[in-house]
Order: sequence, then structure tokens, then C-alpha cells
Amino acid sequence: MTRPSAWVNDGNAALLTDLYELTMVQAYWHEGMDGDAVFSLYFRTLPPGRSYALACGLEDALRFLENLQFSQEALAYLADQGQFTAEFLDWLGTMRFDGDVFALPEGTPVFPEEPLLEVVAPVPVAQLAESFIMNQVHLQTVLASKASRVVQAAEGRAVIDFGLRRMHGTDAAMKGARAYHVAGLAATSNVLAGQVYGVPITGTMAHSYIQSHDDEAEAFRSFTELYPETVLLVDTYDTLEGVHKVVELARELGDRFQVRGIRLDSGDVGELAKQSRKILDAAGLGEVRIFASGGLDEYGVAELVAAGAPIDGFGVGTHMGTSRDAPSLDMVYKLTTYAGEGRLKLSPGKRILPGRKQVWRIEEEGVAVRDVIARADDAEDFTPQGGRPLLQQVMSGGRRTGADGGADPRAVLDRARDTARAELARLPERVRSLEDADPPYPVEVSEGLTRLRHDVIERLEEVPSV
Amino acid sequence: MTRPSAWVNDGNAALLTDLYELTMVQAYWHEGMDGDAVFSLYFRTLPPGRSYALACGLEDALRFLENLQFSQEALAYLADQGQFTAEFLDWLGTMRFDGDVFALPEGTPVFPEEPLLEVVAPVPVAQLAESFIMNQVHLQTVLASKASRVVQAAEGRAVIDFGLRRMHGTDAAMKGARAYHVAGLAATSNVLAGQVYGVPITGTMAHSYIQSHDDEAEAFRSFTELYPETVLLVDTYDTLEGVHKVVELARELGDRFQVRGIRLDSGDVGELAKQSRKILDAAGLGEVRIFASGGLDEYGVAELVAAGAPIDGFGVGTHMGTSRDAPSLDMVYKLTTYAGEGRLKLSPGKRILPGRKQVWRIEEEGVAVRDVIARADDAEDFTPQGGRPLLQQVMSGGRRTGADGGADPRAVLDRARDTARAELARLPERVRSLEDADPPYPVEVSEGLTRLRHDVIERLEEVPSV
Repeated sequence: MTRPSAWVNDGNAALLTDLYELTMVQAYWHEGMDGDAVFSLYFRTLPPGRSYALACGLEDALRFLENLQFSQEALAYLADQGQFTAEFLDWLGTMRFDGDVFALPEGTPVFPEEPLLEVVAPVPVAQLAESFIMNQVHLQTVLASKASRVVQAAEGRAVIDFGLRRMHGTDAAMKGARAYHVAGLAATSNVLAGQVYGVPITGTMAHSYIQSHDDEAEAFRSFTELYPETVLLVDTYDTLEGVHKVVELARELGDRFQVRGIRLDSGDVGELAKQSRKILDAAGLGEVRIFASGGLDEYGVAELVAAGAPIDGFGVGTHMGTSRDAPSLDMVYKLTTYAGEGRLKLSPGKRILPGRKQVWRIEEEGVAVRDVIARADDAEDFTPQGGRPLLQQVMSGGRRTGADGGADPRAVLDRARDTARAELARLPERVRSLEDADPPYPVEVSEGLTRLRHDVIERLEEVPSV
Repeated sequence: MTRPSAWVNDGNAALLTDLYELTMVQAYWHEGMDGDAVFSLYFRTLPPGRSYALACGLEDALRFLENLQFSQEALAYLADQGQFTAEFLDWLGTMRFDGDVFALPEGTPVFPEEPLLEVVAPVPVAQLAESFIMNQVHLQTVLASKASRVVQAAEGRAVIDFGLRRMHGTDAAMKGARAYHVAGLAATSNVLAGQVYGVPITGTMAHSYIQSHDDEAEAFRSFTELYPETVLLVDTYDTLEGVHKVVELARELGDRFQVRGIRLDSGDVGELAKQSRKILDAAGLGEVRIFASGGLDEYGVAELVAAGAPIDGFGVGTHMGTSRDAPSLDMVYKLTTYAGEGRLKLSPGKRILPGRKQVWRIEEEGVAVRDVIARADDAEDFTPQGGRPLLQQVMSGGRRTGADGGADPRAVLDRARDTARAELARLPERVRSLEDADPPYPVEVSEGLTRLRHDVIERLEEVPSV
């Protein structure tokens, strides 16, 4: 028996779905329900201490929709489950995504209840998109949002992704490196992400390299011969001793010494950075930079920056890579329209906004002051004054419109990074800070949308007041 | 320009590594350092409230090592980076993993400092394994450990994986479903995981299906026609109203009513389950089971079980899927031997155990009472009394030994599930509970290993006391 591959790719992604999507789709199909549905993807709340999220992952959502197709193997597996009819599986084999998608550009700061994307397609087709799209947009939005905070905390110093080893699997490591580029990181240690996305990669040595040599100074010497401009890891045995060995190496090499920096990975990094800086400066090595790593998150970075630690860049791994304090958002993909009528689920405390929507960002003197979520299908609903509509049509009839930047995914990615930088700079400072913004950034619901919601609730009758 | 694929597979996995692994490996190679290294993969501490972890992910680590190979595309990308020599890249292109691997069987409960696996290979080759192996073993161990707690909390009731949409990417969703099978889950909603791993899949309907129909009762009727033995989701509008509609449907269908259960997804699930049970029983529907979902974790499940809520199974998603309270372990892959000599990194508070090790589990009357970590290379070191050695040689000279269950990955997986069930049953009850075990499960270090560690530290001289 051959070992089947557990790798996901464009060819088997259609089956990476929750079984209930397929049972529902078969039901729609047998009932002849093929009216257009609108599904909205959004989150309801921000984690504590967060005042914005950064939308990310659209590119992979669109790639999925472009390639959505059930292979013969997939259909055979489904047939074996004993609950799908042959007629339905025939249709499923020919089904392609032919709907429209409206979305926030990647890199846009986004707030609770605002759609990151809306899918408009016949209900069986739109339903099939749920699990995969959410898996990708949720992940990348979670990681871009976390990384954006680390970048804010670093106040212009370089932030580097060291997360690969403890991120949740291979896809998180890849899509994370992508999301980090959007969020403004300087580089990643992930070589495959460099190859695929064209993002800068970086890395020099680990403790094991030092350990496998009998002598730390000898290890530094050997490594520097091969990589004259490297960064030397100085904390394998005793950090300041390690720094002194770098100084000795500089004396030994004279003009040939081109070491770019040292890395501190343990201990009281702020204090060690100050002492290392003194040792280096006293030896005339003012150009040798200091990098810090080891268990850092945005709060650790902010503390080091606030303490005036002479650190030029931060390597950040597990905390950012798993978004440790908030590894998920309460993101949902909710039906809001079917066959031209607004639809809601009625749960106490969980407001759903029906229909197709547009998000308007209102600015005053170049600073965003509030957002308004309005009906997209009613120009009368909301008259923007100084507002920009954020959702763009990125797919029409199953084909990309190019509104997200065109066919070159590297151009799309760089554009997303530019978007994030520009849009974050326009947020009020309190919203960008590491604490809860007080007051929170205002997100209003337009009158027309509010009215539509009440109309839909009245129609559903069952529940007196929500 | 074609859109390059960001999908990881056996062909490009070699490049899914931290750049420093490659720069170190080139340095070893140019220095002629090809002595055997031992690297140990282990974690240092357990998250709060956890008293064991469940080892998982070995299969994917071995698959990686079997397939480890740099493609021409990978080598070309590395050549473009300007820091690798042509001679080294020639060697890298021919390099294969030809070392030995010793590992805990998947499904084994594991404690801090105990190696999950040890790699023995020439140092450049062993170093190259780090990033990928850790990415896989860390992920699957984190998710299996979390899921194992949910299974314990459910006390025999079915636990089902609903996590796909908010797990961290496609690989986490796949490997998570695999890890959950090891941990004892009943099924997953992830269809591709069903196809690839042969694990049971399950799923019926979401709120969107109810919403897209004009009437909840009509939606129930239509779905039941197609799937007579389905589970109906009753909380779209008003939960108990929904249950009454199920009762009406049963009256309408008479003998043809075969609905297997209802699902509660919001509100006070424990209370709603009690009321639903009463309504169903009063209607003679005692065989209709009640399933609960919605924001559950092991504590939520335990609370419902303790309250006597009449719930027959739990659908668990995001909290388990991201291991929300502990999304990472402080897992490391540390050099412990090079060229026959024990090696250590000296960091305050971070003990490293040198050399190749064996973990002995000592049992009394069928219950594990303590583990002893001993030298693997010295039979004199430790005389097990009633102890079993846990690490097995699973790879020899780059080839699988079959000790993990042979060439059929589904047999390997089922065996891991059996291992987990059997080994967990042998742990003391305090260790399996949801609170910190008091006292913690004892893990001792043998005299011989303690002596070896002191010898290595003495040799390194630099640090007076650690």
C-alpha cells in the first residue's frame, strides 16, 4: 500500500471542507434551490487589548474559488459514503465557482461586524466556499493582526519572523510569512516563503553550531571566514564573555572584520544589550548592531524600546507565530440574503446585518474618525461625506476583476503591504496602541441597513425583540 | 507570470526550513565537520493545568526524512542568495537523510525533558531536520494533548472535531484531524481527512440551510426526506420551538421518522438539553439523541457532564483546534552529542541532558508511578525494576525499521490510537485530570546521566555552576 499524501493542494482543496457543507449542498440541489445567496465573512469582537485587525488572506481565498473543482478521486470517496446520489455527484463534478466576490483589500484595518468579504453566488456554490475560505482568511488575518502590533511596538526597528518551527503546521508557516510581509515585517527565516513569495529571508547561526565546536571563539572565527558579514550568536555559554570574544575576533581580523551584528537570545536582554553596546563601543565597534530574540511578543518589544535598550532589530517567533494570546477570532461566514430576501439567524447578543453591504471609512484631515456599514444595493441609503468605500469587487462571474492588483501574486502582496502601511498611518493613534482604544474606533450601521434588519426580523416573526 | 504555488509537499519540503540551518550546514560542510551528532526533541515545561502531553507527529517526521531532497528549483533559489558555494550546493543536491531515529511511539503520554525523538546523523544532516520535524511534531503533540483532555472530560461520550474553519491553515486542519484520532475522538467534520486518513467523518446541517428556507419546519422536512437518519440543528430562531418542530415532524412521519438526534449550538446548552430531553421524551422520542456544540473546550464539556446535562456527544471546534489556552509548547531540538562527546548549551534554568537517552516507565500493579530518563548507551547506568523502555528505534540508516507499525500509515494511525488509550489508562488518575496533578508525575534523571551531565559541564569550564 502506498502512503497517501496528506498534503493539500489546488487539486484536492475542494474536499478540505466540513461534511455538512456537502450534505447541505446536495439538499439544495435536490430541492432545486439555486437562488443567489449572499454570505458575509466577518468577526464579531476583537480580543482584549486589540483595537483593530488587519484583513489578510484574500489572495488564497480567490485562488481557491478559481480552482474549485472536485476530482474523480474526491467524487469516488464521496460515493463511498453512501449518502450522495449519483445525479448529485455528476453535477458536483461539473460545478465551478461562477459567483461574485466583494472584499476589503488585503492590508486594510478592519473592525467588528465589517465584512472582510461577501460572496454572491447560487446558494449551493456559495455554501461550498465556506470552510476553506474561512480557514485561510481567518489564519492570515489573525497572524497579520498580531504581527502588526509587534511592528507598531518596534517603532521602526526591524522585526524578523522566526516562527516556522512552532507555527501550526506547514501552511501556517507559509501563509504566516506572507501575512507578516503585509504587516510590515522586515524578513523571515522561512526559506520556502522566500522562494514562493519573494520576501526577504535572513538567518545566521544557532546554538548547536557553537556547541559542536570545542571552543566558542573558534566557532565565531570559522563562521566569519565563510560569512564575513554575519550576525554572531553570543549567549551559548556566557553572553558578555561571548561579546568579548567578538571584540577579540575584531582585533585579530583588523580591517577584514565585517561582522554585522550580534544576537542575544536569553537572559535579561535589555540589560545585556546595554552592557554589550558598551563593550562594543569601547572597542570601536560602534557599527556592530545588536539583535534580540527569545520569547518576545509585542509587549516584550515595547518594554525593551521604552527602556531604551540599544537593540536594532527583533527576532520574534512562537508568540507571534501562534498569536499566543489570541489564536483565533470569532470569525463567521453567515448567510445574509437568499433569493433577494434578507436572512438572519436570531441568537441573543449576536447581531447579523442582512443583505450586501459596503463599509465607508470617514476621514477628517487625513485621520479616520469612523466607519459606517451601509447597504451596498441602495445608493440612497448613505451619503458619504468625506468617506471612501472599502469593499471592492474582486471577482465577477468566477473571474478575478484585477481590482486586488492583477495576476502577479507578488505585486498583489507588495500592494497589500503598501495598503497596510498607508491605512494604519491614517488610524488614530489610540487605535494603533497596544491597549484597548478608549473610546473604541466607532463603527456605525446606516439607517437604511438598520431599517432593513428590522424588516427582516419582523418577517421572521418568531422572536419578539433582539 | 504564473502564480507560484504556496502549497508544501514532499518535493519542496526541504526548503521549508530556517535559513540558518542552511548557513550552518554549509559551514559544517566547508569545515569538514561530519561527525555524528545527537539531537533531542523535547519540551521543558507543561502549560498550566496540564499534567501530561500526548506524543504525536512522528509519522510525518519520518516521511520528511525519507523524502528529504533538494530539488533543482530549490538549489537555484539558494544559488541566487549569493551566500552558498557551488560545491556546497552540489553536495546538498545529493544529500539524503541516512541517520538513525529513536522515538516514543505516537500516542505515548510524555512529560517534560523526556525526548519525543532523538536523531543520530552526521551533524550537517541532523541539523537540516530541525525546523520541519519540530513544525510537525510540535503541532500534532499540541493538538493531540489538548484533544486528549476533551476526551477525558467527556467521560465516554463522543467528541467530534469541528475545527477546520478556524484551525491555523490547511495543514493544521489535516494533521489536527489525525492527532485527534490518536487522542480518541469519535469523528471529524473534515472530509479530506476522512479520505486521506480513513477516519470517520460526520456532519449534517448549518444555520444557513434553515435560513435559506422560508420556514424552519419546512427545512427540517426537506432535509429529513433526503437524510432520514440526520441530526437536526434546532437553534436557528428559538431552540425549544425548534425541538417542538422536530416532535411535530415525528408525528407527521410516524414510522418513517428516523431522525437520529438534534444539535444545540447556542444559549445555555446544559439547561436547553434538559428541557429538550423532556420535550422529546414526553413525545416518545427517547431514542433521539442530543448533541451540543458552540465554543466548547474541556472545561465546558466537564461542566456539562458534571451538571448531568443529557448530552450524548460534543462537537468541539476552535478552542481545541487552536489549543487556545496553550497554542504552543516550549519544544526544542537540542544538540546533545557531537563526535562522541556530550554537548550542552548553558543557560540559567534551562537544563539540557547530554547524550542519547532512554525513558523508562516504572509501573506498580498496572499503574505508572514514575519515569526515569537514563543513558541509552550505557546498560550499567540504570537497572529497570518493572520498567519499560519507551523509545524505540524507528529509523536505521535512513530507512524505517517498522517499529512504529509498518508501511501502512492507516495501521500506524490506528496503532497510535490504541497506544494512547492503553497508556492513558495506566496513568494515575490525578495526572489525567484537568487540574495540575498534585504531586506532579515524577520524572527522575538516572545517576549515570546526572554524572555525565556534570562531566560535560566541567569540560566546558566557562560557567561555574548551573
